[in-house]
Amino acid sequence: MTVNLPLPQKADLKPVKGFEMGIAEAGIKKANRKDLLVMTLAPGTQVAGVFTLNRFCAAPVQICREHLVQEGSNGEIRALVVNTGNANAGTGESGMKHALETCAALARELKINPEQILPFSTGVILEPLPIEKIISALPKAVSNLGEDNWLDAAQAIMTTDTQPKATSMTVSTPAGPVVITGICKGAGMIHPNMATMLGFIASDAGFAPGLLSKLTREIADLSFNAITIDGDTSTNDSFIIIATGQSAVQIQSVTDPSYAVVRDALIALARKLAQMIVRDGEGATKFITIEVLGGKTAEECRLVAKAVAHSPLVKTAFFASDPNLGRILAAIGYAGISDLDVSHVQMWLGDVWVAKDGGRNPSYQEADGQRVMQAQEITVKIDLGRGNATQTMWTCDLSHEYVSINADYRS
Amino acid sequence: MTVNLPLPQKADLKPVKGFEMGIAEAGIKKANRKDLLVMTLAPGTQVAGVFTLNRFCAAPVQICREHLVQEGSNGEIRALVVNTGNANAGTGESGMKHALETCAALARELKINPEQILPFSTGVILEPLPIEKIISALPKAVSNLGEDNWLDAAQAIMTTDTQPKATSMTVSTPAGPVVITGICKGAGMIHPNMATMLGFIASDAGFAPGLLSKLTREIADLSFNAITIDGDTSTNDSFIIIATGQSAVQIQSVTDPSYAVVRDALIALARKLAQMIVRDGEGATKFITIEVLGGKTAEECRLVAKAVAHSPLVKTAFFASDPNLGRILAAIGYAGISDLDVSHVQMWLGDVWVAKDGGRNPSYQEADGQRVMQAQEITVKIDLGRGNATQTMWTCDLSHEYVSINADYRS
Repeated sequence: MTVNLPLPQKADLKPVKGFEMGIAEAGIKKANRKDLLVMTLAPGTQVAGVFTLNRFCAAPVQICREHLVQEGSNGEIRALVVNTGNANAGTGESGMKHALETCAALARELKINPEQILPFSTGVILEPLPIEKIISALPKAVSNLGEDNWLDAAQAIMTTDTQPKATSMTVSTPAGPVVITGICKGAGMIHPNMATMLGFIASDAGFAPGLLSKLTREIADLSFNAITIDGDTSTNDSFIIIATGQSAVQIQSVTDPSYAVVRDALIALARKLAQMIVRDGEGATKFITIEVLGGKTAEECRLVAKAVAHSPLVKTAFFASDPNLGRILAAIGYAGISDLDVSHVQMWLGDVWVAKDGGRNPSYQEADGQRVMQAQEITVKIDLGRGNATQTMWTCDLSHEYVSINADYRS
Repeated sequence: MTVNLPLPQKADLKPVKGFEMGIAEAGIKKANRKDLLVMTLAPGTQVAGVFTLNRFCAAPVQICREHLVQEGSNGEIRALVVNTGNANAGTGESGMKHALETCAALARELKINPEQILPFSTGVILEPLPIEKIISALPKAVSNLGEDNWLDAAQAIMTTDTQPKATSMTVSTPAGPVVITGICKGAGMIHPNMATMLGFIASDAGFAPGLLSKLTREIADLSFNAITIDGDTSTNDSFIIIATGQSAVQIQSVTDPSYAVVRDALIALARKLAQMIVRDGEGATKFITIEVLGGKTAEECRLVAKAVAHSPLVKTAFFASDPNLGRILAAIGYAGISDLDVSHVQMWLGDVWVAKDGGRNPSYQEADGQRVMQAQEITVKIDLGRGNATQTMWTCDLSHEYVSINADYRS
């Protein structure tokens, strides 16, 4: 089940000029399933990415990093290729060979250089990539290329997702309108830095060289790096922003009047996508926002938000709609702020002031906590009472269904 | 259910001279349940303890720390008191007041000073301690005092434990025999530093002042700080070693020939108790040992062991007996060793070499992994290939039952 996550409608997903997608059924893990996606970018497109910090990062992640380093020199990125059903991680040298062969085969098909391609894989770790199946399905994906395939693309990158995740917007800037459309996937092994997630956002805005990379990192921290489902950091996480520059909006610097508008729109869209992952979190029945304020630094707020969002005891209490709120205090206490004076800590559950000055608020009534816990969307607000920094994270509850999904994933 | 955890037998739990226990039914949370334990120590007994690092540590933990600081001066510890059903944590100033009142009432009963008492509470957080019930039940616990009440004591400290945890041994030293008996409790909110656990070990050995404190910390790191069930660090964890000195064995220094014998016995007994907590882990169906070797430091080995032991994805795969071993590699990769060269990493599941030089071992057969996964006790061995340090941790799987227990705990 999902938490307030409507199905995306094809008509709502606006084409981005200069960006095409084509899908195929390669039969990588299961037959009759869209599992291969090719994306092509018009010449002059800027691409920036943020990748998993996992040391066992997948072969395609390593190749993405290498190919993106060449960005700005002779090797501009012209295509992306994604397979599901296999992560090509923990696959050693043959994994690297397979990922490079995928790039080479697509390069021949598109008549570009292999270094102009970013490969992505997602699925089971530690199993060899069925490279033949991918190579033989690439021509079909290429022949399917079109600007209007966003919904198919969103479907083609799904793994344990129960539904495709996509959203789109048009934003007005002083220089004219900009279209932004994005897709993502992910439902488990989701944690900051980053998740078993793939996210692709395309826009027809143009950016001066270098501008997009910094912005992509900033957006990742405010969106995909602020969600957690189970605390596992995947080997394959990748978040890519593509700017085709095919609109009238050409952003030269951060002081450009259009910059703030496009930046805010990209943040909003990325957050919406990231929250879709939580809403479709494995076994999720609740969508939970953890707001931490009053910290000395954003980093310590993040530690607290993460400890609360990550606690299996907190998450099972949310699943049970049980205001067992001492578990949240316990998580705050072990989050890692060694000089935290708990007598300055306040906590609210929704609009209910639960913990006052580190103890139970004398006016707190269990019935009020119970009322808030019944909701599908719940906000926990924690004031550390020691500064002005803030951080927000999003997570879901931990249900029986999470265990079922992950105990049965490969069967 | 438990994993290979036989019920302790009263006849096996040897009395420790100078150490008495008395229990009562105070009705703290539920009626007709042993929920109050008083322990008394003969004059001259040495006591040392290790406590939770949680900043929201419970009122009794704060008082234990204060009273133990006085150890060695005029205020020798003469009694301990434990209640279950309520953690007296997140209870602010009234929580401190209640814990002190408990000490004062027991002090009157035993005709000692309140500062000679260590109080312990375990149970639900953020609810006021029903102090009247405790005070009125104390005389009954005191009248029940005896050296042969170990099994009753083990029962009286249980919360979500499905069975009492106790073990005992006699060890021969050059100076004569030493009796060591211990009890513990804990099944959830279990994590290094420390767990929702209480552990009490008593011995009739004697120690020179100062010797026991250092030893207690060392033993904690090798036992209760090396287990994890759900990664939550509780507000109340306490581990206490009591040395009554009523035997002929009086240890003056670490070079005393009896020291190593008693130390090793205490480590073995504490590990056995700690492993009992994992074997009774909430919803546990498997007992899993994570051995990490080849690290540069014990600390980095601990990071890796903890990441693997802590991963919900790894734990659900164990529950399903599914050799989805890529999840273990992923956990190694995100454990926090930023310069880990995965091409030197080896992994074994039981006797099966699964990952070789960072990739799938070419000779690994899924059927072999499947065979090992069927067992109730499984060892994962990870060689980081970068040094000589090692670390072992113990954990259990993550099952449907874990969610049920924690979703229903208060109802």
